[in-house]
Amino acid sequence: MESQRYKNCLREIRERANDVVDEQTGVHIKREDWLKLKLHIVSENNFPTAAGLASSAAGFACLVYTLAQLMGVNERYQGELSAIARLGSGSACRSLDGGFVKWDMGQKEDGADSIAVQIANETHWKDLVIFIAVVSSRQKEVSSTSGMQETVQTSPFLHFRAKDVVPKRIKEMEDAVARHDFSSFARITCADSNQFHATCLDTSPPIFYLNDTSKRLIGLVERWNTQEGSPQAAYTFDAGPNAVLFTTESNSSLLLQRLLFQFPPAPGVVLSSYVVGDLKTLELAGIKSLKDLASLEPPKELAEPKIPLRTPGELAYIICTRPGRGAFLLKDLGSSLIDSTSGLPFSK
Amino acid sequence: MESQRYKNCLREIRERANDVVDEQTGVHIKREDWLKLKLHIVSENNFPTAAGLASSAAGFACLVYTLAQLMGVNERYQGELSAIARLGSGSACRSLDGGFVKWDMGQKEDGADSIAVQIANETHWKDLVIFIAVVSSRQKEVSSTSGMQETVQTSPFLHFRAKDVVPKRIKEMEDAVARHDFSSFARITCADSNQFHATCLDTSPPIFYLNDTSKRLIGLVERWNTQEGSPQAAYTFDAGPNAVLFTTESNSSLLLQRLLFQFPPAPGVVLSSYVVGDLKTLELAGIKSLKDLASLEPPKELAEPKIPLRTPGELAYIICTRPGRGAFLLKDLGSSLIDSTSGLPFSK
Repeated sequence: MESQRYKNCLREIRERANDVVDEQTGVHIKREDWLKLKLHIVSENNFPTAAGLASSAAGFACLVYTLAQLMGVNERYQGELSAIARLGSGSACRSLDGGFVKWDMGQKEDGADSIAVQIANETHWKDLVIFIAVVSSRQKEVSSTSGMQETVQTSPFLHFRAKDVVPKRIKEMEDAVARHDFSSFARITCADSNQFHATCLDTSPPIFYLNDTSKRLIGLVERWNTQEGSPQAAYTFDAGPNAVLFTTESNSSLLLQRLLFQFPPAPGVVLSSYVVGDLKTLELAGIKSLKDLASLEPPKELAEPKIPLRTPGELAYIICTRPGRGAFLLKDLGSSLIDSTSGLPFSK
Repeated sequence: MESQRYKNCLREIRERANDVVDEQTGVHIKREDWLKLKLHIVSENNFPTAAGLASSAAGFACLVYTLAQLMGVNERYQGELSAIARLGSGSACRSLDGGFVKWDMGQKEDGADSIAVQIANETHWKDLVIFIAVVSSRQKEVSSTSGMQETVQTSPFLHFRAKDVVPKRIKEMEDAVARHDFSSFARITCADSNQFHATCLDTSPPIFYLNDTSKRLIGLVERWNTQEGSPQAAYTFDAGPNAVLFTTESNSSLLLQRLLFQFPPAPGVVLSSYVVGDLKTLELAGIKSLKDLASLEPPKELAEPKIPLRTPGELAYIICTRPGRGAFLLKDLGSSLIDSTSGLPFSK
């Protein structure tokens, strides 16, 4: 974590701190005391870091939310905390709320109105299923922050995209989410992921986040969609080679079967560490062991014999999930990472 | 070769045929006879085909040029033959002339004025050295003709590129060629190659011509250019993963050494089949055997220990060449592919 980005978040929260009385201990901290008090911050993350999966966004969102809770900060306008999280990591502004979030770029020079607001919460679209295909590999070569700055400076496409393409797509996407319209959602998601990476390639020197495995994941989805004549699944890639795949409940086991058929685990990897998260879909897909994987039939769109079929070990693992909730406070002390008597982290 | 594309070229040439008298035999063929006469066409190609290296462009340019010579066709305006070659394969219009050629998209609906003209011949820029790095792999998955049509229909970037970016770059490139300005030539070449592939990625479904080896070739050039603070080499990729690399005479052995350091041949491949074409640069680079390859020092920009250094077998071979001449007639019968007495191909 870069020290300056962390300090910016802490400064902004401290400026908004209020008097706080702890309900249980009765300890009273005055707003001006927050400027003098030192903090011991311990963080734990169960998500792959520095892999282009927005783990730093999650971290900064969590930090800002937690500091705001601690120091009794109330938002003066909707999205104020998201603007502070944005100072830590651009995309962190999107990670405070759960469900479906829209990042408004804003108008102000200083970015104070570049905030994220929730457009629908995590219960709005229960039919949506998400898989995250984590690609086996070293860490990405370019950090996404420096990458984006170079794109702004050198890509002729970026300005056109920001002005002529994105605003229209955001409206269409809001509409698709509101109507639970998976076809439109999928088309916009894929097209915009591809256009984001096209803009990276249009940068000088070019930025590559997608690798050959990413392209095979795209091919898996595109072949299936073409075969069926309408979107069955969608993909999006952030600043890294890992895919976030979307599908509907009724297609979820078909997508997971396709993933496991084309990307079986490397030899020696056990199923329980290869497919993680919400394992309901794995059950639905009828897969209980590695033996079930080996006997999976190729999906019909792979009849074309030229397509290389199975590439074991290209994925590290697959996370099965759904739209989730945003940041929230764990009330029970048992989940605390800090020993409340010593103020120090629990030793593991 | 698709039959219709070939027939289009033949029809256009026949329509422009003239009376011809063979100097040696005195045989006289009248213009109207060309419509009835059958042709036996034999073609030989020493270039990788269907690999995105414009081999079909070379073939159609050669076909149109040869038919025009045979049937006594004279251009009524500069570039008329290039417009006919374009009916066979879009980029074939660029392959009739040698040296530096400009393809003018034209204004007419039927494309009759979409022609290529030479802006400088092959002797204009003697300092320019070219390497073609042919990537080990199967044939490309999408034919470039169908790919481009899908891009025209689905890429939001394509229209912006054609209207706002390319015309300016063509002017800058003409100017760079005229002034032998390698820095500008290299910058435009790399930026435009990357933007072309960005437009392919912006297509739905996306088109990928670059693979991970292509990206490592781009990385090799970009690292060297960054290290030196100015362009030492340039890359461009057509509809496939193979790189065309440009450099200057004084840098040619440095580029070849870098290529051979990072991309040594697969075990068992002999040097004489790995580096082909004009071998002067190989001599300049001091490489006489595979042993010399093994003892190549890493280039200074690779000091950064994180960069994966050597990937043997990723390239099939490297062609060393320079700007060449266009289509021309081989006058001696010894190079003919057809037996002039039987009219049939020589058996090999």
